Amino acid sequence: MSSATPLPQATSDSAAAQTEYVLTVVCADAPGIVHAVTGAIVEIGGNITESRQFESGTTRRFYLRLQVLTAASREEFEQVLAPVVERFSLEHRLDVVGRPVRTLILGSTAKHCVNDLLFQMDSGHLPIEVPLILANHPTLERLATFYEVPFEHLPTSEEGGKAAFEDRVRAAIEEHDIELVVLARYMQILSPELCAELAGRCINIHHSFLPGFKGANPYRQAHARGVKQIGATAHFVTSDLDEGPIIEQEVLRVDHTRTPKELMAIGQDGEARTLRQAVTWFAQSRVLLDGTRTVIFR
Amino acid sequence: MSSATPLPQATSDSAAAQTEYVLTVVCADAPGIVHAVTGAIVEIGGNITESRQFESGTTRRFYLRLQVLTAASREEFEQVLAPVVERFSLEHRLDVVGRPVRTLILGSTAKHCVNDLLFQMDSGHLPIEVPLILANHPTLERLATFYEVPFEHLPTSEEGGKAAFEDRVRAAIEEHDIELVVLARYMQILSPELCAELAGRCINIHHSFLPGFKGANPYRQAHARGVKQIGATAHFVTSDLDEGPIIEQEVLRVDHTRTPKELMAIGQDGEARTLRQAVTWFAQSRVLLDGTRTVIFR
Amino acid sequence: MSSATPLPQATSDSAAAQTEYVLTVVCADAPGIVHAVTGAIVEIGGNITESRQFESGTTRRFYLRLQVLTAASREEFEQVLAPVVERFSLEHRLDVVGRPVRTLILGSTAKHCVNDLLFQMDSGHLPIEVPLILANHPTLERLATFYEVPFEHLPTSEEGGKAAFEDRVRAAIEEHDIELVVLARYMQILSPELCAELAGRCINIHHSFLPGFKGANPYRQAHARGVKQIGATAHFVTSDLDEGPIIEQEVLRVDHTRTPKELMAIGQDGEARTLRQAVTWFAQSRVLLDGTRTVIFR
Amino acid sequence: MSSATPLPQATSDSAAAQTEYVLTVVCADAPGIVHAVTGAIVEIGGNITESRQFESGTTRRFYLRLQVLTAASREEFEQVLAPVVERFSLEHRLDVVGRPVRTLILGSTAKHCVNDLLFQMDSGHLPIEVPLILANHPTLERLATFYEVPFEHLPTSEEGGKAAFEDRVRAAIEEHDIELVVLARYMQILSPELCAELAGRCINIHHSFLPGFKGANPYRQAHARGVKQIGATAHFVTSDLDEGPIIEQEVLRVDHTRTPKELMAIGQDGEARTLRQAVTWFAQSRVLLDGTRTVIFR
Repeated sequence: MSSATPLPQATSDSAAAQTEYVLTVVCADAPGIVHAVTGAIVEIGGNITESRQFESGTTRRFYLRLQVLTAASREEFEQVLAPVVERFSLEHRLDVVGRPVRTLILGSTAKHCVNDLLFQMDSGHLPIEVPLILANHPTLERLATFYEVPFEHLPTSEEGGKAAFEDRVRAAIEEHDIELVVLARYMQILSPELCAELAGRCINIHHSFLPGFKGANPYRQAHARGVKQIGATAHFVTSDLDEGPIIEQEVLRVDHTRTPKELMAIGQDGEARTLRQAVTWFAQSRVLLDGTRTVIFR
Repeated sequence: MSSATPLPQATSDSAAAQTEYVLTVVCADAPGIVHAVTGAIVEIGGNITESRQFESGTTRRFYLRLQVLTAASREEFEQVLAPVVERFSLEHRLDVVGRPVRTLILGSTAKHCVNDLLFQMDSGHLPIEVPLILANHPTLERLATFYEVPFEHLPTSEEGGKAAFEDRVRAAIEEHDIELVVLARYMQILSPELCAELAGRCINIHHSFLPGFKGANPYRQAHARGVKQIGATAHFVTSDLDEGPIIEQEVLRVDHTRTPKELMAIGQDGEARTLRQAVTWFAQSRVLLDGTRTVIFR
Repeated sequence: MSSATPLPQATSDSAAAQTEYVLTVVCADAPGIVHAVTGAIVEIGGNITESRQFESGTTRRFYLRLQVLTAASREEFEQVLAPVVERFSLEHRLDVVGRPVRTLILGSTAKHCVNDLLFQMDSGHLPIEVPLILANHPTLERLATFYEVPFEHLPTSEEGGKAAFEDRVRAAIEEHDIELVVLARYMQILSPELCAELAGRCINIHHSFLPGFKGANPYRQAHARGVKQIGATAHFVTSDLDEGPIIEQEVLRVDHTRTPKELMAIGQDGEARTLRQAVTWFAQSRVLLDGTRTVIFR
Repeated sequence: MSSATPLPQATSDSAAAQTEYVLTVVCADAPGIVHAVTGAIVEIGGNITESRQFESGTTRRFYLRLQVLTAASREEFEQVLAPVVERFSLEHRLDVVGRPVRTLILGSTAKHCVNDLLFQMDSGHLPIEVPLILANHPTLERLATFYEVPFEHLPTSEEGGKAAFEDRVRAAIEEHDIELVVLARYMQILSPELCAELAGRCINIHHSFLPGFKGANPYRQAHARGVKQIGATAHFVTSDLDEGPIIEQEVLRVDHTRTPKELMAIGQDGEARTLRQAVTWFAQSRVLLDGTRTVIFR
């Protein structure tokens, strides 16, 4: 059973104002990386408050995530890191713990995932901000308004509607400097081009325990197959339908008495929770891509 | 892992309009009860669509819950049952499947349980109607308004405030013919008198896995004790604090890194789900009292 | 999370010796079945101690399972049932609660499932008796001997070995009047003929959450796909590989750090538990076939 | 849901033989510890394959666990660590990954926990060796013999029996250089003196979800209270009964139909799994004491 990771806070310490940073590092595996990185942290008087690492047997790459409390500025931090970055050819990313990630939500008619994301955001448990919800139906408008989130409705059913929708997505990403796109039961297949553009920053929730029951009507498929647990899978979107890297999965026990419609109702809870968990981890820089798999530093 | 039981619907059949009833029966155990009750159902051409029974080893009482599809009216159903009721001294209750139960919600400042109950009600997954939310803080007003549920705010902090609040509860129960009172993180201890008046129809959510960590600050207690899972318990309210009959419990895995504050944030999800499950089962006539324990016909 | 249903016991009551029977009934759905069956039970002074029923929306068949405590003999019970059986064209089965089911175990080299089944049997929690373990490797012999279960080893690797093995299975079924065949990680595909002969009485454990990862090396497949939970599925064997009716499924959380070999080690626990659960329910007459699905009266 | 962590193996690499070490460090928190320790590891050409750290908000102590692959000998490793140990006043422990921990099992009549531990040990999933099982009943002898583990039986029921048993425990610890004592449903309360002597190296399994239902007959208590899930807790033994630091906990869903005896049967599975998990983590140096709580680096 998974649970939401609550949002760490930037901390102010006694005398000097300190900031808690999150640093993620990906590189070819080699000895001495951790020592070199922690050396840079010592230089700026940083205190490591959380540390996770992983050496992938599949891709031979090395993954590191650190949380560091320090009075140093971001520039100072980057400066001490620079020689280490160069020496080990690190891909790295430095961010402030708890900074809200700019998130674009794409929706349709289903409310459960959007309701959960906005409630958690509003409660301060989910470090995202949502400059826009874009949907191909007007259903979500009242909910968006309640949480004071801008909402736009563009139907996709007409000729050319889907392409126009995707163009609006591209424009919104540009306009709001979007870092994450969430398909909260958007129910449309994105074009291969858009999938490619959004690689590694677009999360979908599929209402089955993948790889079982890909495609349409997974609850109907699950009922016909007579499974004893139904699931939900949050994954990065790729052009290969329901085959993108998995971020999180959850299952719920069901039995023979449930109709496909009841499975759908039961499953909504798991979908909302699984998507929320994936978005939370992404927003906390806990999700790293390792080929077709993900590294989750929870 | 538990999951919400979706709401069965009153069904209309081909020619004659049929109704799906739910019948619950409690009595001293004796042979022939099921045969007699099903005999009455045969008389009105009823079809049993769901059936659960239990013979308590503790109280020696017999519990039966049936769902019956029939073209008969409620009066006709009661009429054929009457001789069986008399013969076995049955306590029985006949209701229509899916009828919304009139529910009074008592709240305070926490939103997660109320948000979950209202969202599920609005989605048609939870067969309740809420004529009033009564709270000792104004925090929940916006949420109530969004779901078009009347809201009243009565502070309890002043001298006599708590008694006035309880009097308002009594009046609201009268006025709206309330069948169920839900303490959705109300955070006040009800007076023994009110507990007695609401016996068997008032559900509280306690934020621990009872009987562990009764009383105040259960997450702080859980942290101090170093438990590896935190829980939530939905139970009937009695005057014996956190000792009422348990309806549902859930746990979530945690680890040594969590602060009491983080445990509280993580736990909210489990609280909302556990309370929703208990309310759902109650509204579906699936919860029966067996002394200090409950029979749950899920 | 599922748990083994412990074995109810035949009960002796005060004066007259009573027997607890289990009656299962399958038939075309029609009104009055429960009333007629319970009428027969009233005739022999029986007390219903457990009752479950299900009306299949898929096959339109009706399923009933009753446990009945009575001083009547089996013949008397069958006699009062006879007119009901005829009237509703019931398929029925009357057995004594807790009677050990004669079970043939087929194994290979893996010990975990066989160890679990034999330990539970020996502990009195699993109502089976095992007149023979048949394996294509000698590995399980010591374990079988420890539990005083006869063991035979027939290699299947040579030309004609598999056919000879299956002939031995047929002979053993005949010889020991076998009611259930359990493939406890036997790792060979049964011939379509044997699958057909054993329809509805042969249970296999597959080491994935079906329908995901059918066929060979499911843990390797699961690793490559990067799933976040691994599963096990107990199902009836059919000639369509890993497509038989599912009886029970379980999942275990894993993460990106696990190698395929580690997934295999972790998964063994779930496999053993899932298979044990399915065998327990079968032995307690709780598993009924509903087309390609199962009805589980747990 | 927790799962056994399979046993990492000492790895031989291509040219030079490498060893995988596990290093645990506990000290007062201070900046630069990780940098200093990893500096020592760089000196011996070590590669960090696993890393976890924790800074306790309760005790202000710092906890670190590293797995390191290196061609260096143990002496060389200790030598490079020595100045760091001195500088930060580290409590440290260096061991070889996968080395079997010398474990004394104390038992009584219940077989399930001992059966599980020995089966897992024999399967190579649990890095312990058991030079002796000591029990106050002869029941476990056959099982011990099957796994070729020496067994001794000393009754505790007679006058002075308990003291004699504890003296034998002390002698066995001495004789076999025991690192871990496991109470596998031993069912006797150890004397305060022995508890003190075994502080931090004696694990008990209690058959409830502590702190609920301490003391005797927890399943009977759980039944009376009507809980909806039963649990098991593995904890370090202290002289304060069932109050020692918790290592692992698990729960299993139950319902109103279960008798105390059935709860006991169902619960055995959870007890065995919870104890096995705690022992596995201990044997892998993943369990560190943080005051009255534990740090689990899983």
